[in-house]
Amino acid sequence: MLTLASDFGSPYPAAMKGVLRSHGVVDLVDVAHDLPRNDPRAAAFWLRFVLPEFPPGVHLVVVDPGVGTDRAAICVRAGDHALVGPDNGCLLPPARALAASGEEDDGGDAADIEVFAVDDADPRSSTFHGRDVFAPAAARVHEAGVDAIESLDGFARVDGYDDYEIPSAWVEAETAAGEVLVVDDFGNAVTNVPGSFLDGRVGETIAVETAAGVRQVPVVETFADVAKHDPLVTVGSHGYIECDVNQGRGDEAFELAPGRAVTLSFEEAVAAAVPTA
Amino acid sequence: MLTLASDFGSPYPAAMKGVLRSHGVVDLVDVAHDLPRNDPRAAAFWLRFVLPEFPPGVHLVVVDPGVGTDRAAICVRAGDHALVGPDNGCLLPPARALAASGEEDDGGDAADIEVFAVDDADPRSSTFHGRDVFAPAAARVHEAGVDAIESLDGFARVDGYDDYEIPSAWVEAETAAGEVLVVDDFGNAVTNVPGSFLDGRVGETIAVETAAGVRQVPVVETFADVAKHDPLVTVGSHGYIECDVNQGRGDEAFELAPGRAVTLSFEEAVAAAVPTA
Amino acid sequence: MLTLASDFGSPYPAAMKGVLRSHGVVDLVDVAHDLPRNDPRAAAFWLRFVLPEFPPGVHLVVVDPGVGTDRAAICVRAGDHALVGPDNGCLLPPARALAASGEEDDGGDAADIEVFAVDDADPRSSTFHGRDVFAPAAARVHEAGVDAIESLDGFARVDGYDDYEIPSAWVEAETAAGEVLVVDDFGNAVTNVPGSFLDGRVGETIAVETAAGVRQVPVVETFADVAKHDPLVTVGSHGYIECDVNQGRGDEAFELAPGRAVTLSFEEAVAAAVPTA
Repeated sequence: MLTLASDFGSPYPAAMKGVLRSHGVVDLVDVAHDLPRNDPRAAAFWLRFVLPEFPPGVHLVVVDPGVGTDRAAICVRAGDHALVGPDNGCLLPPARALAASGEEDDGGDAADIEVFAVDDADPRSSTFHGRDVFAPAAARVHEAGVDAIESLDGFARVDGYDDYEIPSAWVEAETAAGEVLVVDDFGNAVTNVPGSFLDGRVGETIAVETAAGVRQVPVVETFADVAKHDPLVTVGSHGYIECDVNQGRGDEAFELAPGRAVTLSFEEAVAAAVPTA
Repeated sequence: MLTLASDFGSPYPAAMKGVLRSHGVVDLVDVAHDLPRNDPRAAAFWLRFVLPEFPPGVHLVVVDPGVGTDRAAICVRAGDHALVGPDNGCLLPPARALAASGEEDDGGDAADIEVFAVDDADPRSSTFHGRDVFAPAAARVHEAGVDAIESLDGFARVDGYDDYEIPSAWVEAETAAGEVLVVDDFGNAVTNVPGSFLDGRVGETIAVETAAGVRQVPVVETFADVAKHDPLVTVGSHGYIECDVNQGRGDEAFELAPGRAVTLSFEEAVAAAVPTA
Repeated sequence: MLTLASDFGSPYPAAMKGVLRSHGVVDLVDVAHDLPRNDPRAAAFWLRFVLPEFPPGVHLVVVDPGVGTDRAAICVRAGDHALVGPDNGCLLPPARALAASGEEDDGGDAADIEVFAVDDADPRSSTFHGRDVFAPAAARVHEAGVDAIESLDGFARVDGYDDYEIPSAWVEAETAAGEVLVVDDFGNAVTNVPGSFLDGRVGETIAVETAAGVRQVPVVETFADVAKHDPLVTVGSHGYIECDVNQGRGDEAFELAPGRAVTLSFEEAVAAAVPTA
């Protein structure tokens, strides 16, 4: 199985699929081709969230604002998985998650991540390395198998590569300060504050401070625990705290966007009854 | 074969695909992941239209504004097909169409619809049951086969479940009054007035009354029977009457949106020559 | 393998997939379903760019503003490939590219293009021939094989059919005048001026004259050779010259859209240092 993810929109991903098919890779799965444009950090978040659901495979990931520069092409082995894409840091967070998910299953080592530089000499174009460099490299890894990457011509183990750590929030017992990592298609503003901050607090009111001011918002299990179009704070399916609106857009209600600051505080919360659906 | 439909946008559907692949389901077909958001009725319309084209299979359908509430997870057996999703009514119209299409082929019974409640105890999240409840359930149905649903642990036949009937229009010989069911990507406003109302009337002029007022519009076989950007009324490929504009947007021209009223009348039509393409 | 391309948006393509699956075609690859709406010329450009990456197969292409009129349904054999769609010219540019790509590989003849009219008598609808005419025809070609098209009932070799030639630019040594063919999802304005016009000129400044006036722009290898949000001229991965903005939209910066005129001139360029990234 080979999955594809990019920020290419359409129809460029089809050129990558054609190359992969021409290299004999039949089992293709589209992850997403509308990842936030030119934003390797958002790609890191989404792929860390999504890829661990998949069984072992090769993952082609092309969010590449540096295409045509001297940034390297890399292949990351993470447990039974491999990721192929540009060396801009966004492969490492999902790689760590893939290695850790393997660990749960079969005692693999979470530190079992190896990075290989891929020789991309003489690509056909300077602007479409997804087609000309990464898809052929991913096809070769797929054919050889994840255990045989070191045997591939042009793949060389390296210790120096870009990494990106998803930023940590500042968390105390009653207050947490973080930032928005991504806004999803529903308008949910996903922060970097871990869901554990809300452990045992469902049903309480929390003060959410953003550029829009301070709002008193219920902490709930799920969207439908508030009335339609009402704001809420909950733990998303990725384990982070989200600022949401039931059947509406949290990013607009809270004036949030990727990188913007959010402070969550039970100390500043006004005691109030939480509406029930 | 397992088809996927949702209102999730991107990249959440990839998490469902990963779960399905991890459960061993290889043959995945995306139907659509941009069904109208939080609108089970639109999903019912579109899936009733599209799913009967498919051969027997399992259809995962997640349009779920009630995620995390106590609405049940259900599996509907419809002839040789099964649908899996939340109990909000939207599975039943496509189920009836699937059962009826089987009837045409092999003498099956259109009433051959059975509904099973699926035990979704202890999902990983309260907000992403597509990943945590419905995809695993669909994978189990796919593996067991549609004939073996009752043998699955946690699946129990039920008689009480939400249903949704696509609303009927009021139709007389010369006048019909209905509403818009959906607006498609082309801007065509699909009403609930059955195409039979236009039988033998192609070439005539019809009065279309909407919030935009009364317009005299030709009844045609197809878009290109009027000039580019001209309005028209025709029978869409789903069998309902549409208010359209050739290479333009009917919803804008007629000020139509889902749920808005439309009256179609030959009595109020002004005699006029229909333009020919 | 059968690829699908259309301007249908969503969820209409799923009905085509259902028909293909019901005809026994399992190996489906989506190329794109958001090709520019009602624009066979843009489809011709994109498919000529993308389809030659694929191994031999059948390509279903439905961009069909004339649906329901008497325009024919055709099947084009191009080397080891076949294309199926409406007779509006857009199949021929990709067909020529597919025949030429086969020629490189195995000595086939670039002129080896044959066109067959497909009898589409009595389709179920007048508005959705993708489902009712083209998908079934493509399934039949897929089953019979590209070499056996003439043996298919209802397929007849024809000499008269619509063709479309991608328009040529006027190119001299120091100046080229052309037009925009398409704007891609990144906002890159792809002109019809061949990349060879820029051979050996990387690092120079070129004058770009558009509706926005005359701008002095660097000729670069790739986007990142200019600062973020700066304009540039480069050769795209399709071999044509593009007017782009690094991590921005070239169409907006240069006020360009499909069909608009662009003049590129080294004679009118002001000598200037090209910024380096």
